[in-house]
Amino acid sequence: MDQLQSLYTIIDLGGTFAFAISGAIAAKEKGLDIFGILVVAFTVACGGGIMRDISIGAIPPTGLSDWRYLLTSMVAAVIAMGIHPLMKLLNRPMLLFDALGLSLFAVSGAEKALSFGHNNEVAILLGIITAVGGGVIRDIFLNRIPVIFEKEVYASAALLGAVVVVAGHSWNIPNDTLIPAGFIGCLTIRLLALKYHWKLPGFPNNNSHLKK
Amino acid sequence: MDQLQSLYTIIDLGGTFAFAISGAIAAKEKGLDIFGILVVAFTVACGGGIMRDISIGAIPPTGLSDWRYLLTSMVAAVIAMGIHPLMKLLNRPMLLFDALGLSLFAVSGAEKALSFGHNNEVAILLGIITAVGGGVIRDIFLNRIPVIFEKEVYASAALLGAVVVVAGHSWNIPNDTLIPAGFIGCLTIRLLALKYHWKLPGFPNNNSHLKK
Amino acid sequence: MDQLQSLYTIIDLGGTFAFAISGAIAAKEKGLDIFGILVVAFTVACGGGIMRDISIGAIPPTGLSDWRYLLTSMVAAVIAMGIHPLMKLLNRPMLLFDALGLSLFAVSGAEKALSFGHNNEVAILLGIITAVGGGVIRDIFLNRIPVIFEKEVYASAALLGAVVVVAGHSWNIPNDTLIPAGFIGCLTIRLLALKYHWKLPGFPNNNSHLKK
Repeated sequence: MDQLQSLYTIIDLGGTFAFAISGAIAAKEKGLDIFGILVVAFTVACGGGIMRDISIGAIPPTGLSDWRYLLTSMVAAVIAMGIHPLMKLLNRPMLLFDALGLSLFAVSGAEKALSFGHNNEVAILLGIITAVGGGVIRDIFLNRIPVIFEKEVYASAALLGAVVVVAGHSWNIPNDTLIPAGFIGCLTIRLLALKYHWKLPGFPNNNSHLKK
Repeated sequence: MDQLQSLYTIIDLGGTFAFAISGAIAAKEKGLDIFGILVVAFTVACGGGIMRDISIGAIPPTGLSDWRYLLTSMVAAVIAMGIHPLMKLLNRPMLLFDALGLSLFAVSGAEKALSFGHNNEVAILLGIITAVGGGVIRDIFLNRIPVIFEKEVYASAALLGAVVVVAGHSWNIPNDTLIPAGFIGCLTIRLLALKYHWKLPGFPNNNSHLKK
Repeated sequence: MDQLQSLYTIIDLGGTFAFAISGAIAAKEKGLDIFGILVVAFTVACGGGIMRDISIGAIPPTGLSDWRYLLTSMVAAVIAMGIHPLMKLLNRPMLLFDALGLSLFAVSGAEKALSFGHNNEVAILLGIITAVGGGVIRDIFLNRIPVIFEKEVYASAALLGAVVVVAGHSWNIPNDTLIPAGFIGCLTIRLLALKYHWKLPGFPNNNSHLKK
């Protein structure tokens, strides 16, 4: 149990780091001041997890009570601000870190909901909410339609990651196989979607596919 | 009690269905993809109820843990996507379903808060929040000022529905009279407001009415 | 304890009053109707506190269950609507009331989190969230980037107020010294920032200061 807990914490802090970088880059591009960048980075990184914790009754939310989350967000934000030139070497670094955060949180969110004894539906929905919640808040703060509703396969990738974790639990697959599997599944889908611009079909120009 | 519970659930699922249709239509008009439409439909349908459940300590929120809410939202969204031409026969169907959802949730929100033992103020406020919360989230997602703040008598209709339920409880009026009364009261006001473009007075052009 | 409680309540109601006025003025300027103005005033005034109460497990949130908060918001909103000409005598009254609300809530938010037995980090973060939460919701409702991310030293002032309360508690400084100290510290910083247009450094034009 202790080992599971520490594995879970490492994944969760990894997602926090990745999303904080993505949040700081977005806030910096909008011209916010240093404090604003730190606040947005923290909110993006911890917002999804705080929604999850409030929904499962984990009070106070870990994002508020565990200093490691705050510290990780701040360090990530400072790195994102400080080594901007270095970041530019990466092509679209925000998208990469965003995909990492998405995959880590989809897995850790589902895992945490299960470990609190909630049912499979709660675990899957909270996996998705943990994964996309921070990004939705970021876009609301920056006054635009949350990109997850419009862009390449995104929340669907988180859905896959969460489903892998939940299904694996039902089949008693051990966590050290399950968690990497969910993470890799989600990340692969998301990166492929980015590379090949996969999109789910939309409306209203082509709703013929629903009328078979 | 069981009967009350099932009456309450039916009303709540009805509101979920109505709001999911309204959310799906709005999301479709914005050109979101299928997954985005499903997510917006679910969020509009269950967002207000999740806020209510978190506020009264009903953890995890029913919208996340009871598969019927998810299923109802998904079915409603698929119907809204699939039978679009049929929907067009209805004049402004989103407004009609929105009014139904508003009235059902105002009543069920107040009812649930009371059944958790909270006071009248909590019940009235949560009736309103359950009823308008989903629509506010929808508008924030779609990046516009929530229409409830600007349009024809809307939250005031929800206030009426919630007050009827709370007042009736104090006077020991049985639920099978009370709940239809609150529902019909709210719906009537809302539909009349739509038909006759009732508006509450605004500012700053006409604040003379406050200075009598 | 009773005395502490009532001191805390008075501060909190003061913040509610100040923020409700600021919310009502902003909503009025956007042309919302009377009900919309009341709803925005209540949400701005009680939104931050409701987030805090949900995060610390104070269910139902005081803003929903204690009629004094609702009444205070409504009275403040009516005053803001009714005596508009009087308000104009004050130069930029929204900013003044906003600064008062900020300072009162930073102190009361931190204080309440501590009184519920949470750790220092939770108290500081919730002091900030209580103080800025209402304003962030106001700006999201009015469809603009929350001003706290862009304007003169704002959340940093709340940070100072919350830190004073938390540090003072660790050093066993009595509340009747501590709370005014936190309040005056936060308010002074905020008013000076407004007067002299203090800004935290931003990006990307001047990130040289990070490369020392």
